[in-house]
Amino acid sequence: MGGGDLSSVLADGLSRVSGRFQGHLDTRVAPVAALCRHVERYRGKMLRPTMTLLSGMACDPRGCVPEAVTEALVTVGAVVEMVHVATLVHDDVLDEADRRRSAPTINALKGNEAAVMLGDYLIARSFHLCSTLDQQRTALRIGEVTSTVCEGELLQLVHRGDLALDEPLYFDIVERKTASLIAAACELGAFHAGADSGVQKALSEYGRLVGVAFQIQDDLLDLIGEDRLVGKSLGKDLEKQKLTLPVIHHLASLPHSGRLETERLIQTRAFDNGHRHEVTPRLNATGSIAYARQTATRLIEQAKASLEALPASPAKNLLITMADAVIRRDF
Amino acid sequence: MGGGDLSSVLADGLSRVSGRFQGHLDTRVAPVAALCRHVERYRGKMLRPTMTLLSGMACDPRGCVPEAVTEALVTVGAVVEMVHVATLVHDDVLDEADRRRSAPTINALKGNEAAVMLGDYLIARSFHLCSTLDQQRTALRIGEVTSTVCEGELLQLVHRGDLALDEPLYFDIVERKTASLIAAACELGAFHAGADSGVQKALSEYGRLVGVAFQIQDDLLDLIGEDRLVGKSLGKDLEKQKLTLPVIHHLASLPHSGRLETERLIQTRAFDNGHRHEVTPRLNATGSIAYARQTATRLIEQAKASLEALPASPAKNLLITMADAVIRRDF
Repeated sequence: MGGGDLSSVLADGLSRVSGRFQGHLDTRVAPVAALCRHVERYRGKMLRPTMTLLSGMACDPRGCVPEAVTEALVTVGAVVEMVHVATLVHDDVLDEADRRRSAPTINALKGNEAAVMLGDYLIARSFHLCSTLDQQRTALRIGEVTSTVCEGELLQLVHRGDLALDEPLYFDIVERKTASLIAAACELGAFHAGADSGVQKALSEYGRLVGVAFQIQDDLLDLIGEDRLVGKSLGKDLEKQKLTLPVIHHLASLPHSGRLETERLIQTRAFDNGHRHEVTPRLNATGSIAYARQTATRLIEQAKASLEALPASPAKNLLITMADAVIRRDF
Repeated sequence: MGGGDLSSVLADGLSRVSGRFQGHLDTRVAPVAALCRHVERYRGKMLRPTMTLLSGMACDPRGCVPEAVTEALVTVGAVVEMVHVATLVHDDVLDEADRRRSAPTINALKGNEAAVMLGDYLIARSFHLCSTLDQQRTALRIGEVTSTVCEGELLQLVHRGDLALDEPLYFDIVERKTASLIAAACELGAFHAGADSGVQKALSEYGRLVGVAFQIQDDLLDLIGEDRLVGKSLGKDLEKQKLTLPVIHHLASLPHSGRLETERLIQTRAFDNGHRHEVTPRLNATGSIAYARQTATRLIEQAKASLEALPASPAKNLLITMADAVIRRDF
């Protein structure tokens, strides 16, 4: 494998992704351009494009050299990030959230209507961008995965307030709304590096498993994270009566009377606002925080195992490191 | 030109468009499927797919025969209708409308959140569908025009309550939010029938002009239409302080003091709810209804003139008839 400096090759690649992202949102319609400049701030971790570029480099026989970050990979990275940012903008409408990456959300700043239309604009631009690629495979995959994300969001929405929501349904929702896009980001990276379908599938599986673990970690942070570190509105899940893994485990672990009592507390929004932290000792009493963490850890082990199909490389090593980091983050 | 029976060929074609539309929204996620069945009811006039099929047939040397309605034309028809229905679903969120084609809107029925996600699902499915076509031209054009529609909506949104909104800005908004998709529906119909770029451009121009006239008629109906006939919430434009052509003309025609007085009435929502019909005599006093009608009529004449590039055919005749009908409708 080639021996370029991975971190500088990756940083250059991500900077090209940012350029393509911004360039493709450019418009002569001044108020739209102003809104797009604001959502630039949402692009914090760049997790999805990073995974696209690393998946591509891990599959490229030239290894970690600048040429391995092809124009097509940069485009795919910008596309997946744009779809992701679009879902964030619409998610904030659904959650009535007012902070995102320590900045006001579009809905808080300009109203729900502007947030709805700006999200639509981002989706439309992302589809346009992926239609500029030679192979239609990318546009088809992005169209498919965006549909799946919406299905996951709708499924979650209709089960708000459903205190009988169980683990299989929770995982079905999470696979759709979060894991599917990360899986596509990895798979398309491999595809554009010329990987065979087995390797594409392995990277898709890696992305899927990391994605589910990522969501579990997000759910944990919403329950027990520090506002200051996470930089977005927290406690939204219980406020919106969205059951997540620790709460599902907690309810299932309680005796009948305890379950009824806790359900009543959730229904009466007893953990909202200043009372969010009162939920932690309860979850710990049934080992539910630990259970969720263990589940995420097991998924990350499986994700790393699915990379066995790939030859050793700095990019592969970084994919392993990123998988571990997903469940260690406190932001 | 071939001599099939245009109305039966068109009806068969539109029925295939409906089938493709429904088939491509099919999903195993039951609550999503239920919402999709509801939006089926929004597909009333099928104006855009009708224009796609007629544009294709008008450009096909075989003329009006069933084979002229190719699989690609049917797909394009379903795509433009799906993008249109997605914008309706999100428009109803923006307008807080509760009726559409005499049925409750998704937002009224299931809440804004479900309407936002369902609109996203429709957009994603439409992009996926157009990516199934061989030529990327369609996906690029649909991505571009959907971005333009969102720009128009956002421009309109930031100018809500702007009582200084003038005709050039009004037309800029309307060209983007309404006319651009109708133009693309016609242009892509011509493209898939193998028309040269000059003819594609002529049909795009026809669609654009018909689209602007269509919006003026919609704006008139919102002001002076009959709820019972139109089948959707009316009076929304003044309620949301969206200035449309008759009102822009009216304000510009009033002496300074009259303008200030009328602006105050609009700002205090004096024409909302039961008082919507009080606006008609005011608009008539300055000839503003007539002015808007004349403007729409002039646009329709220009639209018909742009069809001169096409040979005589039943499909061309029907495009002319449809253009006339757009400004005669009272629903």
